[in-house]
Amino acid sequence: MPVTSQTKGPIMRTSHRGNVDPFIVMDVMEAARAHEAAGRSIIHMEVGQPGTGAPQAACDAVAVAMGQGALGYTVALGLPELRAGIAALYQRWYGVDLDPARVIVTSGSSAAFLLAFTALFEAGDRVGLGEPGYPSYRQILRALSLTPVGIPTSAANRLQPTPADLAGVDIAGLIVASPGNPSGTMLSHDALKALMDHCAARGIAFVSDEIYHGLHYNERATSALEISDQAYVINSFSKYFSMTGWRVGWMVVPADHVRAIERLAQNMFICPPHASQIAALAALDCIDALEANRTVYATNRQLMLDGLAAAGFTKIAPPDGAFYIYADVADLTGDSLSFCAQILDQAGVAVTPGLDFDPIRGGQTLRFSYARSTPEIVEGIARLQAFMATYQHKPAKL
Amino acid sequence: MPVTSQTKGPIMRTSHRGNVDPFIVMDVMEAARAHEAAGRSIIHMEVGQPGTGAPQAACDAVAVAMGQGALGYTVALGLPELRAGIAALYQRWYGVDLDPARVIVTSGSSAAFLLAFTALFEAGDRVGLGEPGYPSYRQILRALSLTPVGIPTSAANRLQPTPADLAGVDIAGLIVASPGNPSGTMLSHDALKALMDHCAARGIAFVSDEIYHGLHYNERATSALEISDQAYVINSFSKYFSMTGWRVGWMVVPADHVRAIERLAQNMFICPPHASQIAALAALDCIDALEANRTVYATNRQLMLDGLAAAGFTKIAPPDGAFYIYADVADLTGDSLSFCAQILDQAGVAVTPGLDFDPIRGGQTLRFSYARSTPEIVEGIARLQAFMATYQHKPAKL
Repeated sequence: MPVTSQTKGPIMRTSHRGNVDPFIVMDVMEAARAHEAAGRSIIHMEVGQPGTGAPQAACDAVAVAMGQGALGYTVALGLPELRAGIAALYQRWYGVDLDPARVIVTSGSSAAFLLAFTALFEAGDRVGLGEPGYPSYRQILRALSLTPVGIPTSAANRLQPTPADLAGVDIAGLIVASPGNPSGTMLSHDALKALMDHCAARGIAFVSDEIYHGLHYNERATSALEISDQAYVINSFSKYFSMTGWRVGWMVVPADHVRAIERLAQNMFICPPHASQIAALAALDCIDALEANRTVYATNRQLMLDGLAAAGFTKIAPPDGAFYIYADVADLTGDSLSFCAQILDQAGVAVTPGLDFDPIRGGQTLRFSYARSTPEIVEGIARLQAFMATYQHKPAKL
Repeated sequence: MPVTSQTKGPIMRTSHRGNVDPFIVMDVMEAARAHEAAGRSIIHMEVGQPGTGAPQAACDAVAVAMGQGALGYTVALGLPELRAGIAALYQRWYGVDLDPARVIVTSGSSAAFLLAFTALFEAGDRVGLGEPGYPSYRQILRALSLTPVGIPTSAANRLQPTPADLAGVDIAGLIVASPGNPSGTMLSHDALKALMDHCAARGIAFVSDEIYHGLHYNERATSALEISDQAYVINSFSKYFSMTGWRVGWMVVPADHVRAIERLAQNMFICPPHASQIAALAALDCIDALEANRTVYATNRQLMLDGLAAAGFTKIAPPDGAFYIYADVADLTGDSLSFCAQILDQAGVAVTPGLDFDPIRGGQTLRFSYARSTPEIVEGIARLQAFMATYQHKPAKL
């Protein structure tokens, strides 16, 4: 390690709110990378991103744009033609007629969450989120001096919260994801409406994370915008549009919130990446390529359902959408972190421990991603089956 | 305007902290765009960004990368080779031997500020900033439930804060920018060290915004890292490297802060834009192209100094670096907002009112940017001179 610059002076202060938990899947990715650097073959079932890149036409559009202009700052809310294109997607997907003025282009859904939480909540406010759920909700809330309130969900309710779960829970906002991560489960139209009605009646801000919309294998997901305009709806080009590393997403907010969000976005982000916005605009029209990706996921999903069951992972959440399978492994282990390390080490398959998604019960769950190519999925399943054939069970309750 | 989706439900809550001030320069840009849409020629002296795009080799690198892989998520702290390249820049520019492990690649300096402020400060903490200064400091602090504390600076001290200005001021952190925006003025090595020593002795976190480093016209700027490791140093590829819309910057933090920042970055941003990181890595080597840009700025700067004086803008801050000139126009107007609107309307030159940078005294100041091409600067100066020849003075004190 090289010598650093001068090291005098006292140790600098740090904040309590900045001391958030690690994103365990990132540590799994790093461990997998270390194995690969040592020459081992690793099958990636830990990563929440497509194995495919952006559609070709999206890359082509960037190449053209780089030759035509400086790609400087855009306006803070995003390129007007991209906002119009996203609004048109709501007509195409849901039959909803959406004013493009309500569409906020963001630097991935990450920036959308930062904007939403600062626009909606004061420091100290309590914000509900279903468990299991996307871990960064909790950490972003903490970083913004908000208090995450985990709402335990049940398999009977597809691992999604219900109004009954919220009874007596004092919260200023609720975050819901359908399809969910890690579960892949969806809320029906009626179940989503029941939650939104509950929140509207109590002044609870409703934030609908719809980042996995487009990735369904039977019925499509319902958007909160089909039910009410009084919600923050967050989505991204990362998943269905296969553009994770481009960091471009969007948010739809009530019309009377747009100006406040614009001011926040001007100051907090200036604008989303210009080249990524160009790519996203082109990707909106790449229906054939994106539906081809979805066909691969559908194939992978069926292979996983059959193959994981054969391996001994039999208690899984209904995988309605996204590209995840969430398995209850309480009869196999009480320590999902060690179990995942063992699977990586012995089987050469990277899997995410449930602790990322559910700090209480996640010691007994795993998340498998099937977003990579079908040959990789086939190989991964074979490895998991071989591993499980010799695994010494250490159930949680012993 | 199209019909929106359903509009039932009550009006959603908003937060106080999300209600930040607008970034006035963005409104000026929008007004300028409206003039242009109506067919008028506008010279842009309002925009804080180069007229040039990314260096050609940076665009070429992106084109190659798009053909080679998926450009998915990178690790949260950025591509290792880019972190190493940035560390090497500290050797090239300052003779500082910097451990790449301390370099955090960010989604522009904007993301660096969000990371720094959450890592360093609790809700309610007071953070000092010199006035005039970059307006987003103040707004980002507010959005994060922090209290911005304006430190009025004097022309005698090059519009930069001094330890004497901080005497008795209760703050948990201080943000300093050298060269400054809007002033373009620099802190000498001794002046910077005096501020850092003052802060270190009092446990005040020191944040050094070095986004305009590389753009100097006499002596180079001093980096806080030449003085102590106990600082957060923020920089970007937007200005010297001419890559505003790519949204890629960086931050150097004390070694024992890296892991906390990594966790925050994983959750708040996942990663900076992958394609932009590829472009940035290539840009580090484009010394000839970037120095050619700087030569243009140097030419523009001299034209501005002569031309603005001839027009009647005679009280300006010492323009050591960046690409701005900050003029005291108290003898011309007490209402810089109206004055700028008049200049835009009558002269066809977009200029930024000082209110963005100094809420107290900014009604009597203007910021001129000379980041565009030399022919544009020449035309802009001619228009300003013609406008001023007929302007009816309305000094602030009447």
